[in-house]
Amino acid sequence: PYHRMTHDFFLPEKLREELQRKAEASLQIIPNSQLPQLDNYHSLVALDTTHRKNANIFGYPSWVYKATSSKTGNLYCLRRLEGFRLTNEHAIRSVKEWRKIDNANLVTIHDAFTARAFGDSSLIFVQDYHPLAKTLADVHLTPNSSHGTRFLPKGPISEGVLWAYISQIANAVKAIHAINLAARCIDVSKIILTDKNRIRLNACSVLDVVQFDLRRPIQELQQEDFMQFGRTMLCLATSTLPVHLTNLNASVEQMGRAYSAELRDTIVWLLTPQQAPTQKTIDEFVRCIAGHIVTTLDESQHRADELNTELFRELENGRIARLMLKLGAINERQEFEGDRSWSENGERYMLKLFRDYVFHQVDSNGNPVLDIGHMMRCLSRLDAGTDERICLTSRDEQTSFLISYKELKKQLGNAFGELQKGSKQGRGF
Amino acid sequence: PYHRMTHDFFLPEKLREELQRKAEASLQIIPNSQLPQLDNYHSLVALDTTHRKNANIFGYPSWVYKATSSKTGNLYCLRRLEGFRLTNEHAIRSVKEWRKIDNANLVTIHDAFTARAFGDSSLIFVQDYHPLAKTLADVHLTPNSSHGTRFLPKGPISEGVLWAYISQIANAVKAIHAINLAARCIDVSKIILTDKNRIRLNACSVLDVVQFDLRRPIQELQQEDFMQFGRTMLCLATSTLPVHLTNLNASVEQMGRAYSAELRDTIVWLLTPQQAPTQKTIDEFVRCIAGHIVTTLDESQHRADELNTELFRELENGRIARLMLKLGAINERQEFEGDRSWSENGERYMLKLFRDYVFHQVDSNGNPVLDIGHMMRCLSRLDAGTDERICLTSRDEQTSFLISYKELKKQLGNAFGELQKGSKQGRGF
Ligand SMILES: Nc1ncnc2c1ncn2[C@@H]1O[C@H](COP(=O)(O)OP(=O)(O)OP(=O)(O)O)[C@@H](O)[C@H]1O
Ligand SMILES: Nc1ncnc2c1ncn2[C@@H]1O[C@H](COP(=O)(O)OP(=O)(O)OP(=O)(O)O)[C@@H](O)[C@H]1O
Ligand SMILES: [Mg+2]
Ligand SMILES: [Mg+2]
Repeated sequence: PYHRMTHDFFLPEKLREELQRKAEASLQIIPNSQLPQLDNYHSLVALDTTHRKNANIFGYPSWVYKATSSKTGNLYCLRRLEGFRLTNEHAIRSVKEWRKIDNANLVTIHDAFTARAFGDSSLIFVQDYHPLAKTLADVHLTPNSSHGTRFLPKGPISEGVLWAYISQIANAVKAIHAINLAARCIDVSKIILTDKNRIRLNACSVLDVVQFDLRRPIQELQQEDFMQFGRTMLCLATSTLPVHLTNLNASVEQMGRAYSAELRDTIVWLLTPQQAPTQKTIDEFVRCIAGHIVTTLDESQHRADELNTELFRELENGRIARLMLKLGAINERQEFEGDRSWSENGERYMLKLFRDYVFHQVDSNGNPVLDIGHMMRCLSRLDAGTDERICLTSRDEQTSFLISYKELKKQLGNAFGELQKGSKQGRGF
Repeated sequence: PYHRMTHDFFLPEKLREELQRKAEASLQIIPNSQLPQLDNYHSLVALDTTHRKNANIFGYPSWVYKATSSKTGNLYCLRRLEGFRLTNEHAIRSVKEWRKIDNANLVTIHDAFTARAFGDSSLIFVQDYHPLAKTLADVHLTPNSSHGTRFLPKGPISEGVLWAYISQIANAVKAIHAINLAARCIDVSKIILTDKNRIRLNACSVLDVVQFDLRRPIQELQQEDFMQFGRTMLCLATSTLPVHLTNLNASVEQMGRAYSAELRDTIVWLLTPQQAPTQKTIDEFVRCIAGHIVTTLDESQHRADELNTELFRELENGRIARLMLKLGAINERQEFEGDRSWSENGERYMLKLFRDYVFHQVDSNGNPVLDIGHMMRCLSRLDAGTDERICLTSRDEQTSFLISYKELKKQLGNAFGELQKGSKQGRGF
């Protein structure tokens, strides 16, 4: 029969480590943080690691924090605009529209409010928190200082990845334009990577509030979205930060040497303004790149399959964890220690011998056998209650019992049920 | 602080149950099966539950089995064509081309061979096994006999689901046509549903072998794919089985009353042959439905997010299962029972008291406290080795020890390390 290896029982190490690091990032707190507590959010942790005070994008310096909601205990990402004074109450209400969008390539926006807790007048946006998210600028454009390659830009991005980004941004823009909004902020520093090749627009809605008084027509802003979309792709295709993207024609020519004509033409289409009154539409764009969207759809489904497979595998651990919790609660209980009828007899005795059988195997020399496969298989079978029979031997080796997993499972249920009777809790097992 | 509820520790019940049922289906074996053992596959289980002998699709009755590969222990789905005699060795080689495709909406094909083990001459196709897969015919078109609604057809399919199916079939057809093959078998009984709204073409390549000698031109077959695609969608949109789909115009008119003009026009496009020499292409089709593909992409990414969230949650169970396996291996080992220095002293003694602390809590009346939250939190902290200190009390209540999880974690490492020294195994923990 096919015996699974240890690595089959648990997640592949790389995925496990990534999830582990994400879990740690989520749990991280700063013991004596100088950051204030807000009305509904506490335990703020700064996520801007550069400490760069940059007002380029919003006209105000912005700071990003992880925070815990006092109401639900859930984590959020707060973006604070330093020194912003709200003059028009309507401005902040525009965020309500944004809340309606639930798009897989857009960081969900939950709320916006003003706060004085930072010692200034701040505007705060509440968004989904994505542990270990990095901006596309950080991932692709910021010189890598860690491996002595300090002044080397990162390697070029493959054409496939660029198309995946284009498909995803198109998906976000489509959802945004569909409810008569504009993204207004498509920039390599305001798009985050949250999983392999998976991106999300990260700072939509901010400019709707901050530049509310300009009341620019939505059509104009939507047309500008295409331009920003094009510039962003050009930055990525030429490894150029937005501030250095000064000569568009030269950049287009440069990228044309490294990538296909189709990609170049797509970017040129995005960059080229339409002659009024004609307007570009996202539907038109989506039709042009339809073939690449199909590829991205295929990749996304493959990713879901992978995750499903892993989850399938982990499921067993959950069941086995529950089972071991039960066994742990039954075996060797002190209060029944004197009471041989509880622990050295009948059901509980079998479960004790089973515990020895699972965990305390020794080889012919009396050395411990630590076989994770044996342990997991025994527990799996107990969980399933199979008909297979095993031989349990008393510690003095005087008595042996032939018993099926099915019977053991029943005994476990009885013994645990009896514990539960005396207890007020015990649900959820 | 925010304390998670029991349901936070484990998968949501519905997803858990579905995965559980899939796991059971995968594990299922038939004790005294009459089915033969093949050269490389054993433990066959019939998946055709209808026992209907139907030669309509392939010209031969076909039977579907789950089987275990003798080489790898992995599960596969075998499709057997009863009574097929291979006359041309080249025929079976066409399957090699199919192996090159790795598409998320196509059941992967691994191999094909002839077999005499069933007492006839059979042709066997080896494909991916998808536990609990159902055909679209079963899901949507077969009258539901279970709830007394025996003769009622199932309810109409929502337009959104139909577009999701169209996008996915288009993805599969695009991959197939791209390497100069044709699907040849797009039928409601040969498309399987493997997850929520997720479908896969299930019987491609079979006709390439069976009708090899006809040598029909690939262009002709590809054009026919569009027609079959259209008929399949029409069956689904009108709740009609293929055998009853006799009047296409009437059916188109019927579906036009329930669905949008865009959907109707899309199906009509698929059904309408082009005037030679013009050929329909899948790229053209994909452009027409681009907007819906974007929606499907969005849904697929949302699904991946959901699975990611669940996996994130389950991760902890895996760690805790490992930890309990270690504790189980250390506590109450018989061979060290006399040796107080092993089990009643120092490290192991602390770990024993810790076990009592985790599993054997009692309330003020001496009744067991079975708090899964307490158990999981204690084990989580032990796993993380936090600085938090707990008070462990000896069973005679004469001695108390104040000890941090960090120290306990070190002691667990030492105690387990010592066990491992004497053991040849113990890796993978
Ligand atoms: N929604 C989010 N969830 C989790 N982390 C985020 C989120 N948004 C941003 N971050 C983290 O915060 C960091 C700072 O974000 P920010 O948008 O300020 O980028 P920046 O590189 O500092 O750009 P700027 O110079 O414009 O401030 C990002 O690098 C990312 O790691
Ligand atoms: N790749 C697969 N993985 C798992 N189960 C499958 C797979 N393919 C088919 N099945 C199962 O086998 C059953 C029979 O498949 P089959 O293609 O024979 O459909 P059918 O309804 O019996 O059609 P027909 O009448 O043409 O034989 C399906 O209902 C499905 O449950
Ligand atoms: Mg910043
Ligand atoms: Mg069948």
